[in-house]
Amino acid sequence: ELRFDPKEHQHLRYNPLRDTWVLVSAHRMKRPWSGQVEKEEEDQVPQHDPNNPLCPGNTRANGEVNPDYNNTFVFENDFPALQPNAPDPGYNQHPLFQSKAARGVCKVMCFHPWSDVTLPLMTLPDIIKVIDKWAELMVDLGSTYPWVQIFENKGAMMGCSNPHPHCQVWASNFLPNEATLSDRCQREYLKTHGEPLLLQYAKMEAERQERVVVQNADWLAVVPYWATWPFQTLLLPRRHVQRLTNLTAQEREGLASIMKRLLTKYDNLFQISFPYSMGWHGAPTGPYLKEDQFHWQLHAHYYPPLLRSAGVRKFMVGYEMLAQEQRDLTPEQAAERLRNLPEEHYKTIET
Amino acid sequence: ELRFDPKEHQHLRYNPLRDTWVLVSAHRMKRPWSGQVEKEEEDQVPQHDPNNPLCPGNTRANGEVNPDYNNTFVFENDFPALQPNAPDPGYNQHPLFQSKAARGVCKVMCFHPWSDVTLPLMTLPDIIKVIDKWAELMVDLGSTYPWVQIFENKGAMMGCSNPHPHCQVWASNFLPNEATLSDRCQREYLKTHGEPLLLQYAKMEAERQERVVVQNADWLAVVPYWATWPFQTLLLPRRHVQRLTNLTAQEREGLASIMKRLLTKYDNLFQISFPYSMGWHGAPTGPYLKEDQFHWQLHAHYYPPLLRSAGVRKFMVGYEMLAQEQRDLTPEQAAERLRNLPEEHYKTIET
Ligand SMILES: O=P(O)(O)O[C@H]1O[C@H](CO)[C@@H](O)[C@H](O)[C@H]1O
Ligand SMILES: O=P(O)(O)O[C@H]1O[C@H](CO)[C@@H](O)[C@H](O)[C@H]1O
Repeated sequence: ELRFDPKEHQHLRYNPLRDTWVLVSAHRMKRPWSGQVEKEEEDQVPQHDPNNPLCPGNTRANGEVNPDYNNTFVFENDFPALQPNAPDPGYNQHPLFQSKAARGVCKVMCFHPWSDVTLPLMTLPDIIKVIDKWAELMVDLGSTYPWVQIFENKGAMMGCSNPHPHCQVWASNFLPNEATLSDRCQREYLKTHGEPLLLQYAKMEAERQERVVVQNADWLAVVPYWATWPFQTLLLPRRHVQRLTNLTAQEREGLASIMKRLLTKYDNLFQISFPYSMGWHGAPTGPYLKEDQFHWQLHAHYYPPLLRSAGVRKFMVGYEMLAQEQRDLTPEQAAERLRNLPEEHYKTIET
Repeated sequence: ELRFDPKEHQHLRYNPLRDTWVLVSAHRMKRPWSGQVEKEEEDQVPQHDPNNPLCPGNTRANGEVNPDYNNTFVFENDFPALQPNAPDPGYNQHPLFQSKAARGVCKVMCFHPWSDVTLPLMTLPDIIKVIDKWAELMVDLGSTYPWVQIFENKGAMMGCSNPHPHCQVWASNFLPNEATLSDRCQREYLKTHGEPLLLQYAKMEAERQERVVVQNADWLAVVPYWATWPFQTLLLPRRHVQRLTNLTAQEREGLASIMKRLLTKYDNLFQISFPYSMGWHGAPTGPYLKEDQFHWQLHAHYYPPLLRSAGVRKFMVGYEMLAQEQRDLTPEQAAERLRNLPEEHYKTIET
């Protein structure tokens, strides 16, 4: 009988946050790649582009002029997927043709006045301003909306249509699918095991260390045991924190620092501005603010698509869409590669 | 009060096959696109390429020589994600670190000896040979494996690394996530409503017609009410058929014909070889062959990424990955556009 080796033998791993499985087939990294190669992202972004609607002082699609902002700047998305006052599609629907009202707001948040910086190239005080603004938006929008999704699409490969450093905030009158699923999984875990899922998980990963990428007194970034994207990470506070708004000043500083370190490693991996989609999940808001949400632990997911190089990505296609997600290197291998990278950004190293 | 108009007002629609919701924001089609534009797919594929491991007579990575095949040709994937004899990761696992054995086989199936044809450009008898071979593989692999996933990744955009017309067949000792979910949803629907979900759905869509793209005596192709991808379709038999292997000779002919018509419309939409991932879902096999699977109805999903043109795709990124899938035109609008396209392939129209 062969002895099981996760690097050699395909296996399934369970994602307790989504109640799904991922197929890990690390031996598949050996296969040659002759498919699509991504265009390298443009590196020559000017600091200020008079035609970019996200830059300070420029005019946007709706005719509004951006202020001369110095750090963050938030405005309403000019083409929002969610608007506050859509009418209700009505009742008495057949079970196979069900629809519901969707109401909300979509905001865009610039991280910095310059187009040629990204979070890992920003100073810690400037990153803290981003975090403070996130928390502020969570308070504002979360006072009425049950779910406020903060997310960043970075890089053209991730559908980002503007190189200026920014994220989006979509608040909705409904709990989106992923929120519902994560809520259910965390709730059931607490009920069965007596401790919040991600609090227990962070403790165990901090002990085991093999999937840790970066850590500090208040935070931990790991390639989760159940990661689907090649270099996916999960960013977790060590303390039980339900929402971004509950972070102390010290935890915000620690978050700025660990984000800078994590994202620097990402950029250093293939020496490019690393594309990803990321977002925050925390206890629901609005009407849920009055309910017990002890099962929730705040966390951020980073989903980066690149697999082998700046040009070769992982495609989540046929088998992944129709059957189950599959990955080509183990989470432990991914964590080790990231962990061993320098913490100084390749762009700031003098040559 | 505004009257609800699905083309103007965002709303949620329920997917009864996955127990999820999709956000439909059709008004968002108006937004300008300045993001990534896809490279046009190479159109100059030679009929026979001596270096392509999928062509007749050529040598593959493992040294085997392909036969001089005339229609379909099946071989073992040279870099399989699933192998038959992987050892078991073992028992006594912590609930947050669960793994399971994954065993199976991965096969590649060429549709035709020529590299420069695709399904819509093949003759009906040749497409029937593809369908017969699918059924044959379902019998062979399905005799032991509980799930046999037939899927096609078409186009470099969908991670396809070889232009030769082919699909893949991955059989596994486990029910993948999507199979488990679809099985549960169809089972519960039958229990609650007394009729198989997709049998009832096909009848209702055939009556309503507004989402039908193509139809014939035995089959129906619709943009489902809950479609997430812009031009996603669902291909359904009209009779209650649980598996590909149960199709009559007449139904196979009808399937070849409706596939050719549907895929011709796809290609005609933007006058390119339309990229997609597609796959078949039917009742599970292996040990499940002995169980009652009345709730299951055979169907194929087509997931094409393009949105506005040959170069502009829909990105399922940030909000979609972290919160919920979102679409920019209504399924009815998509169905209407496809329905109105000619059924003669743009490449075969003489000019
Ligand atoms: O097997 P292929 O065609 O080399 O690979 C393609 O399809 C697979 C199954 O959907 C995916 O896992 C790969 O990411 C994709 O590139
Ligand atoms: O809003 P943006 O940046 O124009 O658009 C991008 O992010 C959205 C939210 O994830 C997606 O729905 C779009 O497909 C993507 O291109």
